[in-house]
Amino acid sequence: MIEQFEVALPSFRRGCHLITSLIEQHLPPLPQKGLLHILVKHTSAGITLNENADPSVRTDFETFLNKLVPENDPLYIHTYEGSDDISAHLKSSLIGAEITIPITNHRLNLGTWQGIYFCEFRNYGGSRRLVITIFS
Amino acid sequence: MIEQFEVALPSFRRGCHLITSLIEQHLPPLPQKGLLHILVKHTSAGITLNENADPSVRTDFETFLNKLVPENDPLYIHTYEGSDDISAHLKSSLIGAEITIPITNHRLNLGTWQGIYFCEFRNYGGSRRLVITIFS
Amino acid sequence: MIEQFEVALPSFRRGCHLITSLIEQHLPPLPQKGLLHILVKHTSAGITLNENADPSVRTDFETFLNKLVPENDPLYIHTYEGSDDISAHLKSSLIGAEITIPITNHRLNLGTWQGIYFCEFRNYGGSRRLVITIFS
Repeated sequence: MIEQFEVALPSFRRGCHLITSLIEQHLPPLPQKGLLHILVKHTSAGITLNENADPSVRTDFETFLNKLVPENDPLYIHTYEGSDDISAHLKSSLIGAEITIPITNHRLNLGTWQGIYFCEFRNYGGSRRLVITIFS
Repeated sequence: MIEQFEVALPSFRRGCHLITSLIEQHLPPLPQKGLLHILVKHTSAGITLNENADPSVRTDFETFLNKLVPENDPLYIHTYEGSDDISAHLKSSLIGAEITIPITNHRLNLGTWQGIYFCEFRNYGGSRRLVITIFS
Repeated sequence: MIEQFEVALPSFRRGCHLITSLIEQHLPPLPQKGLLHILVKHTSAGITLNENADPSVRTDFETFLNKLVPENDPLYIHTYEGSDDISAHLKSSLIGAEITIPITNHRLNLGTWQGIYFCEFRNYGGSRRLVITIFS
């Protein structure tokens, strides 16, 4: 069986945000076994799994990613929308824009310390859309 | 239902290339709801989602990835096939070699600005093979 | 049909390790067509596809990732568990913690040179758990 729907995220400030609970609030009753797939329908945001406990991990993600993908490299040519334009696209493909998570016993089967991060790479990204697909 | 087949890509020059239309040309009629999975069967190429409009994004991808993964680090030991050998392997795991895309109303359900990038990381990679799996 | 189970990996030393055979030893008879999904239930390890032949690729992965994600950046704040703490989290999201592999003719349908890498990013990560889901 396949269930599929879209979710509009609220506007998040630039950075990585723990959205596990927010996602779970949108889910129907989950099957006994299956997979959940999430696509971010944008090219300047990302989704990944990482630590769900200490917010300092998300702070360090932002620090690190800004160093890894500098904003003002004079070699960039896709800079029409500002210095956060091409850097956001690059981060999106490094972190990825879609993930698949197993469902076991009617729950997302993540590790104890795993949560879902939504990463907003633009300064003002606005509301973002997800496609959620549940396979069982 | 599962449909599965392989596709041989034409030889692409080094860099990231928009292949959404090329992929769609190989697809059978898509189901009402489902998932499409694409695997690149190689370890020196990648596949990712990014901007489908302005080619300058793909140019900047090549510029950025060449800086992120320098070719001639004297610490590398896997350099038998030239300076683009280990760097191509590293890029492949940073960008990833497989993606999953939702299918909705018989079409790939990507964002307005999203397209499928095939990234050739070798100087002369030749034809590359994909495995495409459609779940519905 | 869905088959799903967990696998406890042995403790691996820090670095990337080829685990294709180890995974295959845990698999039931595979379907004629399908997908295999693997989740690493941890936020300081990763899983990816890369070259299955020459061990020097894995050595260069470790060299490269340690340069890409320096351990002792004074800007990091999540450093409670030592210098390999936040760097391991960052590497996990760059490499990714889950992959999907097509199944064809009762076998994993990887390229000739592709294998499954498990990457341990902590100095002493201990045993790690995977969730394996087979869709057919």
